[in-house]
Amino acid sequence: MRITALAGGVGGARFLRGLLHHVRTPQPTGPAPHSLEQVELTVIGNTGDDITLFGLRVCPDIDTLLYTLGGGIHEGQGWGRADETHSLAGELAALGAEPQWFTLGDKDFATHVYRSQLLGQGMPLSAVTQRLSERWGLGELGVTLLPMTDTPVETHVVVHADGDDAGQRAIHFQEWWVRHRAELPADRFVVAGLDRAAPAPGVLEAIREADVVILPPSNPVVSIGIILGVPGVRDALRGTRAPVVGVSPLVGGRPVRGHADVCLRTIGVEETSAGVAGLYADFLDGWLVDEDDPMPDGRGLQVVRRPLLMSSVEAAAEMAGAALDLGMRLRAERAPA
Amino acid sequence: MRITALAGGVGGARFLRGLLHHVRTPQPTGPAPHSLEQVELTVIGNTGDDITLFGLRVCPDIDTLLYTLGGGIHEGQGWGRADETHSLAGELAALGAEPQWFTLGDKDFATHVYRSQLLGQGMPLSAVTQRLSERWGLGELGVTLLPMTDTPVETHVVVHADGDDAGQRAIHFQEWWVRHRAELPADRFVVAGLDRAAPAPGVLEAIREADVVILPPSNPVVSIGIILGVPGVRDALRGTRAPVVGVSPLVGGRPVRGHADVCLRTIGVEETSAGVAGLYADFLDGWLVDEDDPMPDGRGLQVVRRPLLMSSVEAAAEMAGAALDLGMRLRAERAPA
Repeated sequence: MRITALAGGVGGARFLRGLLHHVRTPQPTGPAPHSLEQVELTVIGNTGDDITLFGLRVCPDIDTLLYTLGGGIHEGQGWGRADETHSLAGELAALGAEPQWFTLGDKDFATHVYRSQLLGQGMPLSAVTQRLSERWGLGELGVTLLPMTDTPVETHVVVHADGDDAGQRAIHFQEWWVRHRAELPADRFVVAGLDRAAPAPGVLEAIREADVVILPPSNPVVSIGIILGVPGVRDALRGTRAPVVGVSPLVGGRPVRGHADVCLRTIGVEETSAGVAGLYADFLDGWLVDEDDPMPDGRGLQVVRRPLLMSSVEAAAEMAGAALDLGMRLRAERAPA
Repeated sequence: MRITALAGGVGGARFLRGLLHHVRTPQPTGPAPHSLEQVELTVIGNTGDDITLFGLRVCPDIDTLLYTLGGGIHEGQGWGRADETHSLAGELAALGAEPQWFTLGDKDFATHVYRSQLLGQGMPLSAVTQRLSERWGLGELGVTLLPMTDTPVETHVVVHADGDDAGQRAIHFQEWWVRHRAELPADRFVVAGLDRAAPAPGVLEAIREADVVILPPSNPVVSIGIILGVPGVRDALRGTRAPVVGVSPLVGGRPVRGHADVCLRTIGVEETSAGVAGLYADFLDGWLVDEDDPMPDGRGLQVVRRPLLMSSVEAAAEMAGAALDLGMRLRAERAPA
């Protein structure tokens, strides 16, 4: 079974780790629903929040996916490496190097040094990501991790400046997200390079040839929304024969984590599961929402209710299992008799 | 008083730290010979053993000078940072990144990341070195550290290959020195880029306008010899009005540290203080050798005998004081009556 997922960082990674847990965990009613041999999971990761820091290329979402699926993630944070030290960053601060608002640990730095070296040698990001995937054993898990594009793209945020330099200016998404905690009033998102970006090798095929396409509860604007902006991706989702099943990032009208509500407001979309589903209306077939969500069924959209808090790997596995079941059911309904 | 020194790594750095100690230490016969306000020390560092590792530019001699003079050196090793950790290198090894024979600690990595970032932005190495010098407080010590050149140069070693691929091949100096501990039979040294290298800003002026020029007991072939190969440097040494005083790197016919004997053999020069002095014959005025050294006075060369073991900062300070005294005496003899 070929599953293809579009994913941002922490939420997407936790959901997909749950999915892997689900397919190999025996169920109360019998054996594991699928073995790893039967499941091929292709993850298309957002690279819109990539940033060059200290001359090194950092891909936060790709790295969170690698570390989470590969077992090296800092569980408490949800990003970065477990058992991390911060000698290098301390020295950079002593040197007066900027910025100091983005936390990079010593182990994490190795990823960025290695990636930057290979990129500097002309290797495309997808091939670099393949190398990093080998280090984290994703192949043995049946996972292929693809960046959405090999073209460098960067999400910038147009914000209002205060005081003397009142007016608008654009800052890197990470500066808005990490440094300003998305509290700086934002006007819009501008993704530099996205209109000229080509999908990375395998991205469109993974969508077209999937048995089920899943959208984890990643940020619909600055994670999944960016992937959808890569020319060809949205068309592939509209055209694929696979059912597309999404998981709402909103519980009780608010994101569990991150700032999806702020991002939705910024683009003028209602902060509800219905609002998010509207962003996917042209290709979404199934929609998992929280058990108390007032979201109604829509035209051609099957809505399923489940608890959507990923409080543990098991809870994430149940959510992912429900999404997968929905996808399999939609697929069976479509199959020629 | 303006002192200019040419220096390699560990030996040169320890000697120059001794020199700084000497000029501010009260003597048994009275106060300190010179105050820091009176002494301006310009150090011209070898960059021939620079190497690009993991896409980062590493300048081993410059860094050893920075760390030693700035108080951050690992005393036991003589290179690298004190209280160092090695998380990043461990992760690079897990990623299969090569080489693994060059030890880089986490704090040390910060220097290379920062330098590479600035070089990548187009800043010349001399300006980068100035930034690093500020972090290490060299200015407050009266020290200006200059790389010999802003042009990337690299010393390669032509070695004999064994077995099936018998014949000659060139490897980077660091691979020969660190990985093979100078044990691989070497035919010659080739310094890529040296013929086209321009002295860094201030290098020739520091030699021409010095009151005394000092050659610490650095490797005469692959440290000082490389600096002498930068077009213009040797002419400046021949032409300067300052006396040039050197310290022999050989004690009892052998280098105290490093592989100066092997390097001398490789270029066909006798492994004696006389052999080394011969390399500097066209500009050397004074020569400090070990107390048991059989080196005779030469034409126009004043030889002074002193214990040449830098077993402590104080011992290095005594050596440096003797070299400085010799230089001052030669200078006084030259001065118009």
